[in-house]
Amino acid sequence: MLEQARGLYVVAQTPFDADARVDLDSIDTLVDFYFRHGAQGLTVLGVAGEAPKLTLEESRAVAGRFIQRAKGKPVVVGVSNPGIAQLAELTASAMDAGAAGVMIAPPNGLKTEEELFGWFAAVFRKIGDVPVVLQDFPFSTGTWMSVPSILTLIERHPQIRMIKEEDLPSITKITRLRAGAGRRVAILTGNNGMFLPLEMGRGIDGPMSGFSHPEMLSGVYRLYTEGRVQEANDLFDAYLPLLSYENQSQWGVAVRKEILRRRGAIRSAVMRGPGPVLTATDLAEIDFLLARLDRTLSARR
Amino acid sequence: MLEQARGLYVVAQTPFDADARVDLDSIDTLVDFYFRHGAQGLTVLGVAGEAPKLTLEESRAVAGRFIQRAKGKPVVVGVSNPGIAQLAELTASAMDAGAAGVMIAPPNGLKTEEELFGWFAAVFRKIGDVPVVLQDFPFSTGTWMSVPSILTLIERHPQIRMIKEEDLPSITKITRLRAGAGRRVAILTGNNGMFLPLEMGRGIDGPMSGFSHPEMLSGVYRLYTEGRVQEANDLFDAYLPLLSYENQSQWGVAVRKEILRRRGAIRSAVMRGPGPVLTATDLAEIDFLLARLDRTLSARR
Amino acid sequence: MLEQARGLYVVAQTPFDADARVDLDSIDTLVDFYFRHGAQGLTVLGVAGEAPKLTLEESRAVAGRFIQRAKGKPVVVGVSNPGIAQLAELTASAMDAGAAGVMIAPPNGLKTEEELFGWFAAVFRKIGDVPVVLQDFPFSTGTWMSVPSILTLIERHPQIRMIKEEDLPSITKITRLRAGAGRRVAILTGNNGMFLPLEMGRGIDGPMSGFSHPEMLSGVYRLYTEGRVQEANDLFDAYLPLLSYENQSQWGVAVRKEILRRRGAIRSAVMRGPGPVLTATDLAEIDFLLARLDRTLSARR
Amino acid sequence: MLEQARGLYVVAQTPFDADARVDLDSIDTLVDFYFRHGAQGLTVLGVAGEAPKLTLEESRAVAGRFIQRAKGKPVVVGVSNPGIAQLAELTASAMDAGAAGVMIAPPNGLKTEEELFGWFAAVFRKIGDVPVVLQDFPFSTGTWMSVPSILTLIERHPQIRMIKEEDLPSITKITRLRAGAGRRVAILTGNNGMFLPLEMGRGIDGPMSGFSHPEMLSGVYRLYTEGRVQEANDLFDAYLPLLSYENQSQWGVAVRKEILRRRGAIRSAVMRGPGPVLTATDLAEIDFLLARLDRTLSARR
Repeated sequence: MLEQARGLYVVAQTPFDADARVDLDSIDTLVDFYFRHGAQGLTVLGVAGEAPKLTLEESRAVAGRFIQRAKGKPVVVGVSNPGIAQLAELTASAMDAGAAGVMIAPPNGLKTEEELFGWFAAVFRKIGDVPVVLQDFPFSTGTWMSVPSILTLIERHPQIRMIKEEDLPSITKITRLRAGAGRRVAILTGNNGMFLPLEMGRGIDGPMSGFSHPEMLSGVYRLYTEGRVQEANDLFDAYLPLLSYENQSQWGVAVRKEILRRRGAIRSAVMRGPGPVLTATDLAEIDFLLARLDRTLSARR
Repeated sequence: MLEQARGLYVVAQTPFDADARVDLDSIDTLVDFYFRHGAQGLTVLGVAGEAPKLTLEESRAVAGRFIQRAKGKPVVVGVSNPGIAQLAELTASAMDAGAAGVMIAPPNGLKTEEELFGWFAAVFRKIGDVPVVLQDFPFSTGTWMSVPSILTLIERHPQIRMIKEEDLPSITKITRLRAGAGRRVAILTGNNGMFLPLEMGRGIDGPMSGFSHPEMLSGVYRLYTEGRVQEANDLFDAYLPLLSYENQSQWGVAVRKEILRRRGAIRSAVMRGPGPVLTATDLAEIDFLLARLDRTLSARR
Repeated sequence: MLEQARGLYVVAQTPFDADARVDLDSIDTLVDFYFRHGAQGLTVLGVAGEAPKLTLEESRAVAGRFIQRAKGKPVVVGVSNPGIAQLAELTASAMDAGAAGVMIAPPNGLKTEEELFGWFAAVFRKIGDVPVVLQDFPFSTGTWMSVPSILTLIERHPQIRMIKEEDLPSITKITRLRAGAGRRVAILTGNNGMFLPLEMGRGIDGPMSGFSHPEMLSGVYRLYTEGRVQEANDLFDAYLPLLSYENQSQWGVAVRKEILRRRGAIRSAVMRGPGPVLTATDLAEIDFLLARLDRTLSARR
Repeated sequence: MLEQARGLYVVAQTPFDADARVDLDSIDTLVDFYFRHGAQGLTVLGVAGEAPKLTLEESRAVAGRFIQRAKGKPVVVGVSNPGIAQLAELTASAMDAGAAGVMIAPPNGLKTEEELFGWFAAVFRKIGDVPVVLQDFPFSTGTWMSVPSILTLIERHPQIRMIKEEDLPSITKITRLRAGAGRRVAILTGNNGMFLPLEMGRGIDGPMSGFSHPEMLSGVYRLYTEGRVQEANDLFDAYLPLLSYENQSQWGVAVRKEILRRRGAIRSAVMRGPGPVLTATDLAEIDFLLARLDRTLSARR
């Protein structure tokens, strides 16, 4: 099923309350917000979801709540972990809870393709027949995979149903992946959607990223698939200044949570430490960018 | 003088001919193009200028030609090199040729601040009293400098007259650098200018970056310093899709050279190998983005 | 108490059975083996103990069994984890089970000393008043700490009672740490003990490392503290070829487990995958080195 | 010819005088010292030879002097450089001066095997038909090559005549390289010879490393090839404590130069900065280790 995925999969934030405890109630409002703004599915417990900051118990509770509230819509659960035993445990637990699949990126420290293939062989032997999203995000993992390597992994491991492509330039890699894959896998893209309309032109199946305004991501997807390419780009360009502002790794996540809070999607913008805390200057920039966005959108109407 | 710099310093490309030989004549047209579009100075032999691909002799010839054609306008020469003897030799040679100063980034492999400070102490002892731009570009060098570290370097080494800030988020770092520096240093920013208007708001003295349309960089600077903040952002936003497209490391350089060629600034878009070569699909995307830019600019008039 | 530690702390292997399941019974024989050969304490769930390959439940079971069998002798539990919540959970669980303290290395990806200090501040705030061994093992973690940085951490965080020093050269760092620390911390050394007699001369309190023949490590410590420096070196040199052979990261662990199996300390030499598997050639080399060791030791008697 | 090399190739130090200027006269005494102690050839301008600290002119002068004094014995010149134009220039210049070949390691920053192969293809196209030693030293370069990758490079590029293998464990890699290579290439090993007798057993053609006592390296080679395996190991073990002491990267080079100075091979032990400077404690350790070596060697006679 994941290999047939199309449209927006939102990379979900994990909400915390003012004391940095997981805020399960905000998960419900956040899920509703995402689906109301065009999501077809969710990806939870990714890097932007602050997954590494949770305990195992919290991870399970968070994934479970997202899945429950999604009411049958597909939820992919991030389970990347340098330890295969832990990864397998998280995978089993996510699938038991009703996940549509799990997302796996190779760990830091795989030094050659021989090691890369060996690691994934061990992983897939251990987790069994589970739908997997292979995440290609080398700037975060420190492990680079060439197009031929990814194609080899696709060929060897039928569990891989989807690629989340977020190397740069993503566009050239997408073209080569599409041309080279011997079977249908979905290709969705991350990098906060920074190149979404061009990636659509290269043949992806949709964005898999976070953004405070997911309606832009779903809107661009819809317009593009309807053949309204210029309009898709117009919509994208209107949001690009804010998108780019949010595209600054963990600091960008702080911005995104603040805007999600303002939009009523979550109750608190708190990130679990150690992490960025926005200053008055930062908040004023957010005001400024949101006001400009508002004006641009009004002018478009 | 460098500490008083204001406005656009263009990070210059190095032009090659169809056989990947240095094209000195194109340097002349390129210099004229840059100054015609608002440059106050140039930075040559940076990473985007393909400096690591040149021989020592070629480096000297390129720097010399840029300086000559700049006719007294300030030219900063990149001399970063893991070897201090080579760095010092390049520095002396650049200053002899009439450079306004040299740009130095710490090499890869400095593991602690103790090593960082030791390396710069050795460098500054060796090169003597030469105006220096300290480049903070950790994604390229692999060596991270915190704000306190940069402030310590500024305090210890009066040769540092300018910071080229291109860590991310640059904006928060600029605010802290401005607040902390005990003496006037100029702060210019790189990252292809991706956050230029916000960086202006944080107190920088101008952009130091490459872009196929330097008139945007100089225009944003001018509007902002005139207090026309919204107009500065409007101008910036018009170019942002193309700017972002060019902001993809060495692949982005290939795009930039192609556009500079189309604009008549250089004769050939060739990059010296091993490096990216644009495909028909890539070129069609450039057509598309330039056509959209054209339309946007027309609408603005 | 940890700050008063002296003598050998063995870095313990984790035994697995032929199917790569944790072999709790072998923990008992292994603990007895270690103490019979001169250990004063143990360090469990380190990198050489294959900690990253265990699930959380397994980690708890392993640590608990080691502590139980150690019968009051000090056991340090490795809890290093990029996620502070998980680290804190492991810490609480280890201390509840009776650990003498926990060992913490900074995670990969801390880029500056500002980030290093921030990370440890968050850790120590979270775990509370727990005795900590600070592990300085940059080749494994990818995070380098200078001597001034370690001294700052010691000064700021009274929980740090011991340093496990295994940067290279360890000897020069030990001299500087001993001279600079404002209060008593124990300094033990890792790197498989490759420089143990010299490190003793620099003022350490003992080795904290694994070796298939811990009697050498404890013997060198004893002889050295009795002032019999040449004899300490003689003993060390006799084992050095084998020690060096075992000092080859994860492949060396496979060798060590094979020898521990031959010596009856554990039932199976299996490492949990993905990891090295010894070939016939490897095993023949082990035979060869053990035979030579045997001859050398006989000649010494 | 390089593919038929057998025996010791000494990795040569670069001598400096008290003011850190290249000391060409000491090159003559050093070359004589190396050949007097069993060298069959030399490798100059490697990492241990402080090559990155020299200017281009100095590099040429140093290589030229070594070649001249070697009087026809083979001299390999290190030319590793991230820039292919510079690498090619150094190569041409070394071959003109009479080098037997050049040594090349891949630069830091090649992220995938696709990039690795692309880089070497560009290099070999550029330098033409020059005998090349491929250096596999990932701990220094940060670029890892698997055995299949090295075999692919050997197959594609007939210029590769020799492998300098210094990954760890070297022994397992040697076995696989020997079994897999489709044509004769020499395999020599680095890592300061730390595993020399075992590497001989795995089928290497000799050591390529530096050591203050090259007579050990040549002696082990000779004994081993004469079938006197135990004696080869006895000789090796006698020197192992000192060898291990010198095997501490740049700090170990400082030790080696100090001992070479004491043995009359060079006039000054100075390293060009920034680099380690030995303290009184360090020097006392050298005294201690040399005295112990002396005693051991006397006892063996």
